Amino acid sequence: MNIRMICRVLGLIVSIEGGCMMIPAIISLVYWEHDAMSFFTSGALCCMLGLVLSCVPLQSKDRLQLREGFMAVSLSWIVLSVLGALPYFMSGYFLSPVDALFESFSGFTTTGATLLTDVEAAPKSILFWRSFTQWLGGMGVLVLMLALLPKLGAGSTFLLQAESPGAIKTKLVPRVGETAKILYAIYIILTVAEILCLRIAGMPWYDSTVNAMSTVATGGFSCRSASIGAYNSTAICLIVSLFMILSALNFSALYCALVKRSFNLLKHGETRIYCIVLLSSTALITADLVLRGGYDLTGGASTALFQVASASSTTGFTSADYSLWPAFSQRILLLLMLVGGCAGSTSGGLKMQRMILLVRLLKAHLQRMIHPRVVRVLCVDGHRVEDQVLSGVKLYFFAYMFLLFFLTLAISLDGYNLDTCFSAVVACVSSGGIAMDLAGPTGTFNIFSAPSKLLLCVGMLAGRLEIMPLLLMCSGAAWTQK
Amino acid sequence: MNIRMICRVLGLIVSIEGGCMMIPAIISLVYWEHDAMSFFTSGALCCMLGLVLSCVPLQSKDRLQLREGFMAVSLSWIVLSVLGALPYFMSGYFLSPVDALFESFSGFTTTGATLLTDVEAAPKSILFWRSFTQWLGGMGVLVLMLALLPKLGAGSTFLLQAESPGAIKTKLVPRVGETAKILYAIYIILTVAEILCLRIAGMPWYDSTVNAMSTVATGGFSCRSASIGAYNSTAICLIVSLFMILSALNFSALYCALVKRSFNLLKHGETRIYCIVLLSSTALITADLVLRGGYDLTGGASTALFQVASASSTTGFTSADYSLWPAFSQRILLLLMLVGGCAGSTSGGLKMQRMILLVRLLKAHLQRMIHPRVVRVLCVDGHRVEDQVLSGVKLYFFAYMFLLFFLTLAISLDGYNLDTCFSAVVACVSSGGIAMDLAGPTGTFNIFSAPSKLLLCVGMLAGRLEIMPLLLMCSGAAWTQK
Repeated sequence: MNIRMICRVLGLIVSIEGGCMMIPAIISLVYWEHDAMSFFTSGALCCMLGLVLSCVPLQSKDRLQLREGFMAVSLSWIVLSVLGALPYFMSGYFLSPVDALFESFSGFTTTGATLLTDVEAAPKSILFWRSFTQWLGGMGVLVLMLALLPKLGAGSTFLLQAESPGAIKTKLVPRVGETAKILYAIYIILTVAEILCLRIAGMPWYDSTVNAMSTVATGGFSCRSASIGAYNSTAICLIVSLFMILSALNFSALYCALVKRSFNLLKHGETRIYCIVLLSSTALITADLVLRGGYDLTGGASTALFQVASASSTTGFTSADYSLWPAFSQRILLLLMLVGGCAGSTSGGLKMQRMILLVRLLKAHLQRMIHPRVVRVLCVDGHRVEDQVLSGVKLYFFAYMFLLFFLTLAISLDGYNLDTCFSAVVACVSSGGIAMDLAGPTGTFNIFSAPSKLLLCVGMLAGRLEIMPLLLMCSGAAWTQK
Repeated sequence: MNIRMICRVLGLIVSIEGGCMMIPAIISLVYWEHDAMSFFTSGALCCMLGLVLSCVPLQSKDRLQLREGFMAVSLSWIVLSVLGALPYFMSGYFLSPVDALFESFSGFTTTGATLLTDVEAAPKSILFWRSFTQWLGGMGVLVLMLALLPKLGAGSTFLLQAESPGAIKTKLVPRVGETAKILYAIYIILTVAEILCLRIAGMPWYDSTVNAMSTVATGGFSCRSASIGAYNSTAICLIVSLFMILSALNFSALYCALVKRSFNLLKHGETRIYCIVLLSSTALITADLVLRGGYDLTGGASTALFQVASASSTTGFTSADYSLWPAFSQRILLLLMLVGGCAGSTSGGLKMQRMILLVRLLKAHLQRMIHPRVVRVLCVDGHRVEDQVLSGVKLYFFAYMFLLFFLTLAISLDGYNLDTCFSAVVACVSSGGIAMDLAGPTGTFNIFSAPSKLLLCVGMLAGRLEIMPLLLMCSGAAWTQK
């Protein structure tokens, strides 16, 4: 394990975070709020720490390997989230360090589960920082670092590989820094487009910016207690729905659709199936809401579409109190969150790509039972998928379920029912943020004890980094073996 | 697809069932009850149907293949359960054909979920038939057929393979009929031993027989409403616990332990880990019951042991109202049921063997991330496990979870909370029969609508046959392709 390279990466990341804290500090000054000092202090602390870590001398043979990549990514996210909690804690709006940590983890991992009960009462700078951490975490902070500082070294591709979600990792262009720049370009275009659309629909500039950052990161922190429902506007709901769906699509596919004329987004396998799932879920929930939930057809359909887009993209915005919906509709939302959006997007969950691969593998397995000697090759978008990747997908599913059940069991010590516990865990691990019953829209995650909150933080981090990096970090072998 | 061979197998199975119905008919006569006719009529019907199916002429080249084996097993279990529901329906103790079907499926699949609210009010012959169907289903009806009629043909090994649970299929001795006989010999020895132990502990002969059949099959139908708790005897609870645990062990390992002096049961990997899981779960639940459930240490430990043995062996007996326990203890029971006992036992669930393999595969996967070029071979009990088997284990886990989530979503249409719906589904698919909350010990499965009951029947069957045979039966390709 090359500790020097990891320190260098951590130093860069922490410095970037320190720089980012200056933006909410300025916002605080602009709006005449009293929190500028907490941001300046935290930012200065970050920059100093970053400087110290960056001073670790590198040797000429130092290179990142896949193992160091995973380790650097895991550690970066932990350090980022811990330091990101400083402004929350200093501002005094969170009662305990655990609460501040929870909010920070929930931000960087784009979960969107909040402990704030009265969001409007919090200062604008704090709310901006919440959404800004989501925006940073959405595309990945290491991807941002690679876009800004592409000359980190030969192994920087492993950083991209370790941080970007999905089973099949591809680079858009041969150079890592260029790929990172393209990804951030799409990301920024989406964000700016949404800010403008929301402004035109009548939302103030500040709200538009905050909500747009949370949407495109599929995060879900809003600057209103009632989330997007607070604006009471169908146009705003539709705009946010559209951008949630776009952000849950594969960014490589979006890039190809923008650049290559011959590329048809709807012929892209994963995108097509994602859209089918969206439409059929919306139809099922609309039917359930109209038949048994007391909604009319238009109201039911628009609410269903918004909430389906929010759950399946693992954003977590709400436009209505879904905890009053029939059980069937609530369970659909839960499953949508569990599955999540497309691979290579900012969304969380298991990812549609993995589900498609698993179903196809199951089909192939049945075929082999009938014809034991037939060998089939599994292809995605015309490329053969390696056995190693397929094996990884199946084991990831196992690890994911194991994590869900383990965390649900552990937080059951708080004594709540399965609806509350399981949905809270799914909300955190999938980064969806939509919990049911006691932790639902009318409740908060405050009902959980401090140990449960910390466990949920671990769940959020594991979900965002797709488990394996964290498991590797916890296994002693990865540290000691050459 | 060779339909003739399948008809021949079905004919034999149905005739055996018809013969078996004569036993409760005689019991009905002995106890002067009015249900003898329903058993005689059903039995006669079965025998006639069996005779017709057996008359299908075979051709000299007819052989069973793996595909026919799966198909024959799936169809046999469906036909068995449907015909087994006849006495229930004719007796008038079940209100609708769906209820009779549910009870029959629950019996043959050794689930033990019941729709009877007042068990003591039902005739002794009906209660005997309930437990007898579990005893028949426990070791497998096709295994019984192979033990009785070993000369079915060259491919009969595929029947054993398709019906017996677990990932790695081994024959104890080269000949299929001999293997089946050995398995049934252990099964009968266990049953008789338990009947004698229970009788000595003071249980009447009839109760001992009924409860012993349900225990050894890990079924869970009792002849009392309060299950084993009704006898109010620590000795009986301990005897039943012991036999539940024995029945959840690998029968091949039990055979080796009996026959080979050199074989140490506690050095058998799966058995050892199963025992560790049993003990640690009992310790956790005892601690929870003592600290937060108001139990004293002895009472808590004995109740915890019984309920842990019942859940992990997927039997489903109860000695206390676990729905009053703290949430944490209830969730442990749920997870134990989900995992189930050892492969090659009469228990259900995912099986301990598969869980061990999955954890080891995950470890190997992490190792490969550190050292991409190292190739590791996975061995169980000194034998290398084939890649095909490992791939099957991973996909089985996916299919199992998919089934659980799909069924939970579907029965959510009845509007109950997640505790009720998910635990009912796990109870049925794992054949554990321990549901929580509204379907728990103080409630029944009667709360579910008829479509939900039918879906749960499908779940029970899928769980008992380990999903793949049913999936194959439903895929058109298996029927049409040569």
